[in-house]
Amino acid sequence: MNQDRLDRQFDFCREIDKEKEITRQTYLADGSRKEGDAEHAWHMALMTILLSEYANEKIDVLKTVTILLIHDLVEIDAGDTYAYGGQDKETQKTRETAAAERIFSILPPDQGAHLRALWEEFEAEETPEAKFARTMDNIQPMMLNAASDGKSWAEHGVYLQQILQRNAHTAEGSQELWEYCARKFLQPNLDKGRIQKNGKE
Amino acid sequence: MNQDRLDRQFDFCREIDKEKEITRQTYLADGSRKEGDAEHAWHMALMTILLSEYANEKIDVLKTVTILLIHDLVEIDAGDTYAYGGQDKETQKTRETAAAERIFSILPPDQGAHLRALWEEFEAEETPEAKFARTMDNIQPMMLNAASDGKSWAEHGVYLQQILQRNAHTAEGSQELWEYCARKFLQPNLDKGRIQKNGKE
Repeated sequence: MNQDRLDRQFDFCREIDKEKEITRQTYLADGSRKEGDAEHAWHMALMTILLSEYANEKIDVLKTVTILLIHDLVEIDAGDTYAYGGQDKETQKTRETAAAERIFSILPPDQGAHLRALWEEFEAEETPEAKFARTMDNIQPMMLNAASDGKSWAEHGVYLQQILQRNAHTAEGSQELWEYCARKFLQPNLDKGRIQKNGKE
Repeated sequence: MNQDRLDRQFDFCREIDKEKEITRQTYLADGSRKEGDAEHAWHMALMTILLSEYANEKIDVLKTVTILLIHDLVEIDAGDTYAYGGQDKETQKTRETAAAERIFSILPPDQGAHLRALWEEFEAEETPEAKFARTMDNIQPMMLNAASDGKSWAEHGVYLQQILQRNAHTAEGSQELWEYCARKFLQPNLDKGRIQKNGKE
């Protein structure tokens, strides 16, 4: 038995338990509470398995799922940075890179390098898998926001312009899913005033 | 655009959000609160990706991950049944089968049948993937129980005999992981009296 390898793998598996304690700004579909990072990752992993048929380019599903399962681990050290929020955004990259360095180094080197590379691939948004993962990362909260009657959008006074900017690349993973979500989730909330129409360039 | 197919897929994606509200008996590693079903599934999916090398038989990792991501969806209707707990155990199968019928039927028929078959495969514990998924389902809470100083075992007054019975098939997915976990997680808690030594056949 490779004792050291197993120890490092289990040290990592225990360490990532902390992701469960990071809260996002998105409410659950029933609006009862905000969701956690690990719940968000689980949801998107399963959505990827069900919705991969709509990817613009053929994707490796296991690779995309892996990216989504690990993409928020850096928040264990760096915290959740709200998509439409202030100063935190400026230091996000530095904080998250330091976190990746520490957290993935817990693993045996081969696995640490593999997950680190997948996280960087996600951040670079260039491969079909990274693009589709980004699409999921944008439409999953959009679906939940719509289900909870636009609660998070309304609370933060979010403008359509901000959402469109945030979703500038969502269609690059899946044109079909972006169009469906814009029509089903954004438009009704714009009509109801849960998303603000004008302003904030 | 296949509107009906997309509607059904998103109906399902919204429905499964409810899994996030189901609480298990296992505490997080730091003992601060109990974990939820979706967090548990996320954790095991990632553990499978990292630990598949220890499977007794070669496994299809994506299939195993999919099984683990969906295996607790039936608890949306049937609730969590504690591994060492009472009467609930007797009606568990009936309640979960009815839940599977309702929940997987929300999806387009091809996807609903696929996930339903994977859930049944998990329950039957016969294929390499189902066996490994069961191993994960047993060792992930064991790891967390040990990390939280045996909190859940102590609270429920769990006996070694009960744990061994519960883990009768854990080694069938991975002999190496079972041996590691028994030595690293069970033995120290038995020595400290967090797991009861005698009784309850």
